[in-house]
Amino acid sequence: MRLLFSSLALFFLCSLQAQTRWNNPSGNSFPVLQNQGWSGEIGTTFERFPARAEKTVRKAVWDLSHHTAGLAIHFYTNAPEIIVRYKVKGSFAMNHMPATGVSGVDLYAVTPDGKLKFAWGSYRFGDTVQYKYQNLVRDPKQPKGFEYRLFLPLYNSVDWMQIGIPDSCHFEFIPVRKEKPVVVYGTSIAQGGCASRPAMGWTNILSRKLNYPVMNLAFSGNGPFEKAVVDLIREIDARVFIFDCLPNMGSLTDEEIYRRVMEGVQNIRNKYTAPIILTDHAGYTNDQTDTAKATAWKRMNLAQQKAYQQLLKNGIKNLYYLDHKTIAFPADGTVDATHPNDLGMQAYADAYEKLLRKLM
Amino acid sequence: MRLLFSSLALFFLCSLQAQTRWNNPSGNSFPVLQNQGWSGEIGTTFERFPARAEKTVRKAVWDLSHHTAGLAIHFYTNAPEIIVRYKVKGSFAMNHMPATGVSGVDLYAVTPDGKLKFAWGSYRFGDTVQYKYQNLVRDPKQPKGFEYRLFLPLYNSVDWMQIGIPDSCHFEFIPVRKEKPVVVYGTSIAQGGCASRPAMGWTNILSRKLNYPVMNLAFSGNGPFEKAVVDLIREIDARVFIFDCLPNMGSLTDEEIYRRVMEGVQNIRNKYTAPIILTDHAGYTNDQTDTAKATAWKRMNLAQQKAYQQLLKNGIKNLYYLDHKTIAFPADGTVDATHPNDLGMQAYADAYEKLLRKLM
Repeated sequence: MRLLFSSLALFFLCSLQAQTRWNNPSGNSFPVLQNQGWSGEIGTTFERFPARAEKTVRKAVWDLSHHTAGLAIHFYTNAPEIIVRYKVKGSFAMNHMPATGVSGVDLYAVTPDGKLKFAWGSYRFGDTVQYKYQNLVRDPKQPKGFEYRLFLPLYNSVDWMQIGIPDSCHFEFIPVRKEKPVVVYGTSIAQGGCASRPAMGWTNILSRKLNYPVMNLAFSGNGPFEKAVVDLIREIDARVFIFDCLPNMGSLTDEEIYRRVMEGVQNIRNKYTAPIILTDHAGYTNDQTDTAKATAWKRMNLAQQKAYQQLLKNGIKNLYYLDHKTIAFPADGTVDATHPNDLGMQAYADAYEKLLRKLM
Repeated sequence: MRLLFSSLALFFLCSLQAQTRWNNPSGNSFPVLQNQGWSGEIGTTFERFPARAEKTVRKAVWDLSHHTAGLAIHFYTNAPEIIVRYKVKGSFAMNHMPATGVSGVDLYAVTPDGKLKFAWGSYRFGDTVQYKYQNLVRDPKQPKGFEYRLFLPLYNSVDWMQIGIPDSCHFEFIPVRKEKPVVVYGTSIAQGGCASRPAMGWTNILSRKLNYPVMNLAFSGNGPFEKAVVDLIREIDARVFIFDCLPNMGSLTDEEIYRRVMEGVQNIRNKYTAPIILTDHAGYTNDQTDTAKATAWKRMNLAQQKAYQQLLKNGIKNLYYLDHKTIAFPADGTVDATHPNDLGMQAYADAYEKLLRKLM
């Protein structure tokens, strides 16, 4: 009875007639950045790699590791209004990717039956970026409020971030999920270019669909299956390892692609038995109008497929291949022949979801 | 034999070793802006309404009629390289829609078997916007070259435009298609917000899928089924009339929505027997998290559906209703709860295509 009373009090005391209380993910007593490897080491900063990685990966990779692609913050609140404010370090937008995708955040509420529902916030891009979510649905049966999942910018770094709610309302950060993550090593495509908003990057769609942590270790223009990155990934006790690196391997010879795939897979398999997925280049959507693109991606696929076959022959178990026919990338699925729009992102996520549901 | 020779000459004479010849759609001897109503009256300028409309429509509608949404230029060329350069009048991008969609162009090649293939051009946004298409596939069996379809910016006005090819190559504007167009009166959504590139606006997807002219008379924030616009549309002898206006009718009472739908449909039906489609509001994708959005769109749909039923009772023939269940708008199909991303645009286009194939 007392519990019921305090629960109801929690709900009814919460109103807009109050000052804003700012909650700081970075200042929290426990790590709250979901899908982040090395939480213990990184602490509560908005990074994808631990500081020591600066010494082992190329500068371009290190710089891109500051982008918050795939990171998310989960929390409970019963507030009717949530304000997210933060500072980003880079440009707000690219010509082929809007500010909402490059630098925006994306919020979903989790319903009591586990479904994720999109929430929209009015936004303002400036020295401080702000998203304001209003008129949020509340439910007296959920006195602490719904669980919310906030997806962070795909192509920008976050300097600081605060989540504001009316002071009279409940707010509670949710600790980092404990499941072994699905780890994705990839390129600009897996990093999230060019989704219209963070939740539409395919690793984030996949995370929502599976309701499971998916760690984004993808680096725009800089994901060519390098040993330095595989060595870091090897520190993650993953549920599944995904290598979607081919779109950045176009400048490599067949032999070098073969070598990197062989060594990368062996490197992981020497330590873990978890499933490993190698992914085809899904194709350039202008490969029937541009003579330079007609065969480029097919060559890379053949080189990787050769390595895959050899790895199977070598007795590597639990190794899977996601080929471009299975991805079935839509002809209109890119903004620029290379980078998926949201239609293409959904196709990638659907293909991965189907495969992962068999493996997990 | 002589014909064969000159055809082959046409093909082989064309090379990059030549000066660029600029072709000017505005200066052409016949109108070349596809999907443009009132071609004879507008001439060859990049407009959606004739000049006299300024006196009859609201200023906001008039201003938006300068946006080139839905306009396209079709041409033949056998050139290996095409440069499109032009000047736009407004901002390049919006925070939730990239420059490629707001101000970019989009090029497709038509293969001999009638399929449209995406081409990609490297772009540069500046005082002069430029798209450069290189390494284009050529086919000796198509001496004049492929037909190309160039889709113009969705959310900007075009001051002037030139299409450049090597001087030694063939170039030929294709006259405006003669089929009666599908005419769409709508809001920001139908205008193309927030597609990643022009061809992904749903009226343009539909035009490609049907290989048929679709005229875009949609005006961002300004498509509330107004008599002044219906009176102009009434001048177009359309194959099908589509009224997708509800997303801009939220501030109107049920009675006013009912009245405008009744009068608008009757206005068209008094003159034409062509199919008329009324379209539901497809829903806000945050309607389960935002209390203000939960019922707003359903109310509008009920008001329009009531008018639809009454029109049927009144004996109006060839009247169709595209309801939100049939549109089946995806939960992740918007960038901002209201405006479709490319995933949502595809859903709209698919729903319209299915219905139109029954009617045409």
